[in-house]
Amino acid sequence: MATINTNYQKLQAGYLFPEIGKRVRNFAAANPAARIIRLGIGDVVLPLPAPIINAMKAGVDEMARKETFRGYDDRGRGYDFLLEPIAAHFRSQGVEVAPDEIFVSDGSKCDTANIQEIFAIDNIVAVTDPVYPVYVDTNVMAGRTGPADPSGRYGKLVYLPTTAENGFEPALPSGHVDLIYLCSPNNPTGAVMSRASLQRWVEYAEREGAIILFDAAYEAFIREPGLVHSIFEIPGARHVAIEFRSFSKTAGFTGTRCAFTVIPKELCARDGVGESVPLHGLWNRRHTTKFNGVSYPIQRAAAAVFSPEGSKAVQANIDYYMENARIIREGLGKAGYRVFGGVNGPYIWLRVPEGLTSWQFFDRLLSEANVVGTPGSGFGSCGEGYFRLSAFGFRENVEEAVERIRTKVKA
Amino acid sequence: MATINTNYQKLQAGYLFPEIGKRVRNFAAANPAARIIRLGIGDVVLPLPAPIINAMKAGVDEMARKETFRGYDDRGRGYDFLLEPIAAHFRSQGVEVAPDEIFVSDGSKCDTANIQEIFAIDNIVAVTDPVYPVYVDTNVMAGRTGPADPSGRYGKLVYLPTTAENGFEPALPSGHVDLIYLCSPNNPTGAVMSRASLQRWVEYAEREGAIILFDAAYEAFIREPGLVHSIFEIPGARHVAIEFRSFSKTAGFTGTRCAFTVIPKELCARDGVGESVPLHGLWNRRHTTKFNGVSYPIQRAAAAVFSPEGSKAVQANIDYYMENARIIREGLGKAGYRVFGGVNGPYIWLRVPEGLTSWQFFDRLLSEANVVGTPGSGFGSCGEGYFRLSAFGFRENVEEAVERIRTKVKA
Repeated sequence: MATINTNYQKLQAGYLFPEIGKRVRNFAAANPAARIIRLGIGDVVLPLPAPIINAMKAGVDEMARKETFRGYDDRGRGYDFLLEPIAAHFRSQGVEVAPDEIFVSDGSKCDTANIQEIFAIDNIVAVTDPVYPVYVDTNVMAGRTGPADPSGRYGKLVYLPTTAENGFEPALPSGHVDLIYLCSPNNPTGAVMSRASLQRWVEYAEREGAIILFDAAYEAFIREPGLVHSIFEIPGARHVAIEFRSFSKTAGFTGTRCAFTVIPKELCARDGVGESVPLHGLWNRRHTTKFNGVSYPIQRAAAAVFSPEGSKAVQANIDYYMENARIIREGLGKAGYRVFGGVNGPYIWLRVPEGLTSWQFFDRLLSEANVVGTPGSGFGSCGEGYFRLSAFGFRENVEEAVERIRTKVKA
Repeated sequence: MATINTNYQKLQAGYLFPEIGKRVRNFAAANPAARIIRLGIGDVVLPLPAPIINAMKAGVDEMARKETFRGYDDRGRGYDFLLEPIAAHFRSQGVEVAPDEIFVSDGSKCDTANIQEIFAIDNIVAVTDPVYPVYVDTNVMAGRTGPADPSGRYGKLVYLPTTAENGFEPALPSGHVDLIYLCSPNNPTGAVMSRASLQRWVEYAEREGAIILFDAAYEAFIREPGLVHSIFEIPGARHVAIEFRSFSKTAGFTGTRCAFTVIPKELCARDGVGESVPLHGLWNRRHTTKFNGVSYPIQRAAAAVFSPEGSKAVQANIDYYMENARIIREGLGKAGYRVFGGVNGPYIWLRVPEGLTSWQFFDRLLSEANVVGTPGSGFGSCGEGYFRLSAFGFRENVEEAVERIRTKVKA
C-alpha cells in the first residue's frame, strides 16, 4: 500500500498567502463595491522596463529561427551571457564570485526551499522568528522537525526571536545548530542585519561547523551606504555560507521567474564518516537531476537587467517602491503607529494596536479600510502583534491606503 | 557540524548526459575537423513555430504595460487560459480531466523528479530496466534505496526487465510494490505499452494499493490508431495513477520550459494510521511551497500549442521528427542492425554489434562515424548491449548519420 510522506501532516494551516487570498476573496464577494488595495502578498506592480522587454523579445526571436534556436541549457545552471554579468555585479559590490559558482534558477523561493535537500535529515535548523514560511515548511516536509506545539512552533527547530526588543538582530543560538537561515534585508521585518552582527554569525558558523543560508533577495533595496549586500563581504563567509538572490523584486520578475544561488567551491559539510564534501558538487547534482534550466528568453531578459539601460530602468522602479515605503512608514508613523523597516527594504513592519492579534488587525484593516496586509503571526509566533505592509503598489494606491488607515483604523 | 545527505554518495557516476557531453567535448577537442552529428541527448532542433512565437511575444508585450502586467501566478499551478485547453485536449483524447486537477510546471523532468517527495521513504519503488535515470536518481537521493551493486542496481529498488525478449512489455512484479514508474511511449526504447498491458498494471495497482507514475511526455508521437495516449483511458486509472505530460518534445519547448501533471482528485494513499489521504492536496502543498509558477509569457506560448494554427504547426514538426525516425529505423535495419522503437516514439533502440558493450559502441560510433548516441547501459543494466538514437535532428544530419553508420560501423 503506497503511503504518504506524513511529515506533510505536521504542517500548520495552509501556506500563509493562500489563506490571505481566501479571506480577501470572501470579503470581496460579500462587499462587491469595496475597492480593495492589496499591500499583502508583496507582489510587484510596475511593468517590465523596455530594455528588459526588448531583450526578452530578442530571445523569443532567436527561438523562431533554426540558426539561433535553443534547446536544453546543457549545463542546466545558466548561460555564460547571464552568469558573467552576475559575477561582474558581485565584483562591483566588492565580492569575488566565479561564474561557475552561480546556479541560475526559476526563483529564490524554489532555491531556498530546495537547498535543504542536500543536507542530512538530522541537521539542526535555526530560523529567525518571524521568518519567511518557506524555510520552515520545507524542513517540516523533509522531516527535520517534530510536530507543532500550540503556538505553531515545530519541535527540533531552533527559533531565534527577532523583534523590536533586540532591534531585529537575532541573538546567536545558545547551543549548537547546523543550518541557519538568515534573510537581510529581512522579509517580513524590513530590517537589515549589521556588518558586525553578520561577522558574529560567520564566526559562529566557523566555530560550530554550521552553514548559513543567506537570502539576499532584497539586497537591491538597500539605500544607505555601508550596509552589507552580500554575505561574502564578510571575511570567512565563503567557507560557511550559501547566498540566494532573485530578479523577482529587484527587476519585477515575480511573473517572469529568474533567480540565482551562489555556492563557493570551498564550502563543505561533513559526510557520514567525517570527510569534508564540497556542497557545490552536491547542489550541482541536485540542480541537474531535479531541474532543467531556466527558459532561454527569460535568461536573456535577466541578463538585460545588468546592461546600462536595464540597470538604470530597474533602479528607477526600486526608487519608486522605496518612495512608497517612505510614504507608508512616515504616514503611519505620524498616525501613531510604531513602524519599522521600509528604509533599506520594501517592507514596513508595524505594531498592531494594543489588544488586537495580527489576524484581528488583518480583518479590521480589510473590513474598515479595505486594505490587505499580512498578519505578522503568519511569519511565526514572535510576529504576533506585528503586521507587514508591502511597498509594492502603485503610488496612488499606497497614498490612499495610508490615508484610509490613518483616518479609519485607530493606531 | 552540518552534514550532507549521504544518499547522494550512493549515486553512480555523473548523470548520464553530462558524461556523454564530456566524452564528446574531449573527442571534438582532439579532432577539430570532425563534423559531429548529435543524436544523443534527444533535444529538439526545429525552431518554435510562428503561432507559438507570436503568442509568447504577445505575452511579453503584456508584461510591458501597467494594465496587463502579471506578477505571481497566484495559485502557482497555471492560468485558466492554459489549464482549460489542456483539459479540452484530454477530452479530445477521450479522457475527462478537470482543469483544477492539472498542475502546470517548468518540466516533466522536474515533476517526475519531485513527485516522490509526497510519498513515505519506505515505499517500495519499481522501475523498468532500462529506465529514464531521473526516476531512479531522485529516489536514491531521497533515501528510498540501498547502495548500488556492481551492476549499478540499487538495493531495495525493484527492477522490471524490459527487453526484446519480452517485447518491451515489463512483467508485473512478483511481489508487492508501492510506486511504479511507467513511461509510454518509452524513453529510451521507443516502445508503446499495449492497452491490455496497461489494464493489467492498473489492476495490479488496485489490488496492491500501489500508485502508477505514468510519464506520457512522448504521447504526441504516437502514430498508430488505437494505442493508449493517457493512462486515464484505462478504467480504474483515476484511482491509481498520476500522469505527466510535457511541451518539451511535443512542441519544441526543451529550452522554453513548460509541462504539466495530472492528479485526479479521487487518488489517495494511506497515512501512518491507515487513513486515505488525497494526493491532489499533498502535491498542491508541495507545488505551492517549493515552486512559484511558470513564467507568464511561457504559459501564453504553451496555450498557443492548442490553437488550431499552433496545433497544426506542432503536428508538422512531430511529422518531421517521425520521418527521421523512419529513416533511421529502416536505414539501420537494412544495414543489418536489429532496431526497435521509432514507430510511435521518437527514439530508435538498437542492438549493438555482438561482443561490444554499449559504451564501446558509443566510442566507436563517435570515433568512426562522428555520430553521438546514448549507450543503453546508461539507462540500466538491461540496457547493456543496446543503444539509443534520437529522431530529433535535422533531416540532412539524420540521413548523413545513417549513411555514415551504414558504411563505417559494421552491425
